[in-house]
Amino acid sequence: MAMETGIIFHPYMRPGRTARQTFDWGVQSSVEADKLGYTSMMISEHASQIWENIPNPELIIAAAALLTKTIKFAPMAHLLPHQHPTKLAMTIGWLSQILEGRYFLGIGAGAYPAASYMHGIREEDQNTEHLNDMVRESLDIMEKIWKREPFFKEGKYWDAGFPKEEEAVTEEDEQHKLANYSPWGGDAPEIAVTGFSKKSPSMRLAGEKNYKPVSIFSGLDALKQHWETYSEANVKAGFTPDRARHAVSQTLFVGDTDAEAKKEVMEGPIGYCFNKYLIPIWRRFGMMDGFAKDAGIDADKADLEFLVDKVFIVGSPDTVVEKINELFYKCGGWGTLQIESHDYYDDPSPWFHSLELAAKEVAPRISLPTKQKPAKLDVALAV
Amino acid sequence: MAMETGIIFHPYMRPGRTARQTFDWGVQSSVEADKLGYTSMMISEHASQIWENIPNPELIIAAAALLTKTIKFAPMAHLLPHQHPTKLAMTIGWLSQILEGRYFLGIGAGAYPAASYMHGIREEDQNTEHLNDMVRESLDIMEKIWKREPFFKEGKYWDAGFPKEEEAVTEEDEQHKLANYSPWGGDAPEIAVTGFSKKSPSMRLAGEKNYKPVSIFSGLDALKQHWETYSEANVKAGFTPDRARHAVSQTLFVGDTDAEAKKEVMEGPIGYCFNKYLIPIWRRFGMMDGFAKDAGIDADKADLEFLVDKVFIVGSPDTVVEKINELFYKCGGWGTLQIESHDYYDDPSPWFHSLELAAKEVAPRISLPTKQKPAKLDVALAV
Repeated sequence: MAMETGIIFHPYMRPGRTARQTFDWGVQSSVEADKLGYTSMMISEHASQIWENIPNPELIIAAAALLTKTIKFAPMAHLLPHQHPTKLAMTIGWLSQILEGRYFLGIGAGAYPAASYMHGIREEDQNTEHLNDMVRESLDIMEKIWKREPFFKEGKYWDAGFPKEEEAVTEEDEQHKLANYSPWGGDAPEIAVTGFSKKSPSMRLAGEKNYKPVSIFSGLDALKQHWETYSEANVKAGFTPDRARHAVSQTLFVGDTDAEAKKEVMEGPIGYCFNKYLIPIWRRFGMMDGFAKDAGIDADKADLEFLVDKVFIVGSPDTVVEKINELFYKCGGWGTLQIESHDYYDDPSPWFHSLELAAKEVAPRISLPTKQKPAKLDVALAV
Repeated sequence: MAMETGIIFHPYMRPGRTARQTFDWGVQSSVEADKLGYTSMMISEHASQIWENIPNPELIIAAAALLTKTIKFAPMAHLLPHQHPTKLAMTIGWLSQILEGRYFLGIGAGAYPAASYMHGIREEDQNTEHLNDMVRESLDIMEKIWKREPFFKEGKYWDAGFPKEEEAVTEEDEQHKLANYSPWGGDAPEIAVTGFSKKSPSMRLAGEKNYKPVSIFSGLDALKQHWETYSEANVKAGFTPDRARHAVSQTLFVGDTDAEAKKEVMEGPIGYCFNKYLIPIWRRFGMMDGFAKDAGIDADKADLEFLVDKVFIVGSPDTVVEKINELFYKCGGWGTLQIESHDYYDDPSPWFHSLELAAKEVAPRISLPTKQKPAKLDVALAV
């Protein structure tokens, strides 16, 4: 099975972008990705960060719904502690119906303290245990809402219910039935969770619950560990792990030549975002360690050029195929490459060209199950 | 000032319509109304009713945002007791930014018991006092979120806060500022509330707070009382009441001739909706009384034809101008006629033709301040 391509849209818009520009860029990107055969568009939800400035992924998804044909959308992720589960369950169900099933649901607990605080979660409660307890209660309520069976729950965090609906006897009764906002085709949508760190607890949860695992790439060790954790828990819970469901996000840029691709990333919006925003954060929170370890260098020495050469997947189609095959060989491969989106709002053409090459010249040449060691691997590893 | 035209979209889709059809019809209607010069599109929010099947007006608004140019959108109304105020405040702010100000905010407490129950409001709390207490707390929190000043509130219903943001000193600090999801152009959007019954408490609230008053037409007595209640409270609170801000919703259909218009309403989607859904509800809850009183008949005798002839505004452009002028003369007039939308999804052409006639042949001939008694009024009153 050939690797699929997807986009993950955080969206890393540079400060100063208006809400309308961000929104417009999200819709444009969805439409273009759909046209190019991308299979999924994941959109982040953040209440606080100026570079990650989408509080409501569902608004972009809705705006792109009628303009796209085959691509699936996912909020990645709806932050369950920030909203009433009934309200959210209906938004999810209705949107998945509008998309006639082109939808799956990323869930999360919220990682930014400022965002938790805004939604009434005090500092002392901003720990994994408390937030995950909220996530569990929210999911429990949402599942009940989607089932449409009578209940009333006084939760620790929320109260919610579903009324007993009288059977419609007359034609007039039919006119007063409850509208159905359960997800398309069933009681629940497919659920996905993201993992970043090596010991990500969400990969275990994904395995146990048979959720779709999504790895935010943070080095080979972590990536291998994600799959091990997920598949072990998945088998234990009675499921059969399927690498095709595993999505891995990466910074990727494909140009006509290696030199053009590298120049564009170093000097264009991707380099700008990493220099201004991501590299300082990654350094501050030790998120550079996995990459530095893979390359055998000191984390302090990891700069943009190091990332472009050794961590990101940047180059001509041939080079990019080699680099991905190398990763597949080392970690076992995955089903969908989730390309990290960047701010090409002013001139989308280099970005859309890269997306096109990735979908048409790269992805079809990479497939699961992982084949034998790529011919050029020794060379690639020695670079 | 000529009367403006708007749409109110509940949307009264017949049972069996899919979510996609409803959504698509909302977007199509918005685009058409914008093209015809309509100034506002109000979209309802309901969690329970099969005929009123939009749980998230913001999704239709988002989908229409980039496809429209001048029309303003309003959820009418976001039900404040059903959602976390911080989350909602950000949705509202972000959407109003996306629309670059083509937005105002309808707020409500939620009228359907099933919907309240789903969102955790027990039967014993489903009274005006309790629900309005929730509305007040929600508004208080939303206003604080929009102001972006530090606070933490442990509310009766919700906890919420806004962090103290350190001043950005370095350029790096700038990259980590909080995103701004306050409404376009200021601390708060324009707020609107709807009133239906003669003694509507929301008209008093609207006056006190200087919100935009929206009357759901339920007879002349109620309409006159709405304006009196509003303007009295508005003056008392130190404002100057402006009839141009008053929107009145009505069932209206304009055809090329009186006969064509009446036939279309009696036999088309509007008649179907009233016969199947609205007339039975109106009878059950005494909502026919005001109309019957206006016409001096018994409420039991009020059927579809009575409504078409005596309550709705149906006819050729000339007839419709006369009927509206008559209403203006009797009640003092209003700024925007908010036309009740119906399910013309299968064949929009008669509906869009009616909308076009209303905007181009009717509205420009009606204006505030109310002029003298229309020439044909005696005839009209005697019919």
